[in-house]
Amino acid sequence: MSDAGAGRRGGAHVVDAVLDLVADQGMTGLSFRAAAARAGVSPAQVQYYFRSKDELLGAVFDRLSADVELRLAAVDTTGPVRKVLAQLLRVWLPLDESRVRAARVWLAFTAAAATSPLLGPRQAAVDRQVRADLAALLRRARDDGDLGPGLDPGIEATVLLAVVDGLTLQALAVPADERAHLLDAGLNAHLSRLLPGPAVPS
Amino acid sequence: MSDAGAGRRGGAHVVDAVLDLVADQGMTGLSFRAAAARAGVSPAQVQYYFRSKDELLGAVFDRLSADVELRLAAVDTTGPVRKVLAQLLRVWLPLDESRVRAARVWLAFTAAAATSPLLGPRQAAVDRQVRADLAALLRRARDDGDLGPGLDPGIEATVLLAVVDGLTLQALAVPADERAHLLDAGLNAHLSRLLPGPAVPS
Repeated sequence: MSDAGAGRRGGAHVVDAVLDLVADQGMTGLSFRAAAARAGVSPAQVQYYFRSKDELLGAVFDRLSADVELRLAAVDTTGPVRKVLAQLLRVWLPLDESRVRAARVWLAFTAAAATSPLLGPRQAAVDRQVRADLAALLRRARDDGDLGPGLDPGIEATVLLAVVDGLTLQALAVPADERAHLLDAGLNAHLSRLLPGPAVPS
Repeated sequence: MSDAGAGRRGGAHVVDAVLDLVADQGMTGLSFRAAAARAGVSPAQVQYYFRSKDELLGAVFDRLSADVELRLAAVDTTGPVRKVLAQLLRVWLPLDESRVRAARVWLAFTAAAATSPLLGPRQAAVDRQVRADLAALLRRARDDGDLGPGLDPGIEATVLLAVVDGLTLQALAVPADERAHLLDAGLNAHLSRLLPGPAVPS
């Protein structure tokens, strides 16, 4: 369990509990009371750390983003861009139960962000950052001569993020034993157009 | 307002109210009480038509699917596949306020389906159907010689659905005046690889 600091131990514990709850049952039924019960504390303790449900959701969203950034930062970004991308995407795609749970939480927050004045701008900022990071990688591929001819790194970053997000949505809906095939087939088809050349063994 | 039959008028009215509510504020806070208030009926009347929240959500999901099918059925599917696809996708993509609201409802239900034993299988069935329809179109494009060389219609149907869903997610997160550019640029880049040849004016 991560911990933002000894003085906020209780707050981090509540954030963990909410991540768990949302992975199990989505945003529906999420309340201070449910978060408190899952965390094993009183609703008053939850309110000590988070004055409103929005504040709690904001903290959970920030934790989610920080977790993903941490895992992405651990990827070796040297070498051919197609190898780097394959590794980066494997951090994210719902290929096992723990990433399925993380993807469900991401989806719940993405949906909530579409109608929330608090989460909306944060979601937009994360998307913008991911598109910028992917565009930088694709520009490097272009400089290395690895990007498909005539492709625009900025636009292709948008399309690549769409492919990854959209495949994740579909993968969450199919039975567990069909997920890997759907994700691999879809992603390989897209990446071999984006970055032609020999496939990188994963 | 659509109506499943005179005897269920109240039920259809409640479904309309829930669609409206979810477009405004997502699934959070959705309850019999909130649905009744928006529909201008009593909670007991809502319960007369829908014995549980799950049953209500199922009815709303079915309405959403039926609405999209109805709009898709109105598209002229003769002629070059790229023209047909461009028209089909315009039915769906959040290019104006009414389609933005429909896309928000879709996203809320997609997220709910990821953790709901009731909605999950329906979502999976809709995805499967859409992939099958897109694959049939892409097979026709292949037979016409319009599909990019070496592409597999089945896999490309999965990738195309991913691109459309993923661009929709990103479009919902950006300011309204950036939506059309993001959607057009992303979709055109993808479609010109999938179905090379002269672009079709939209």
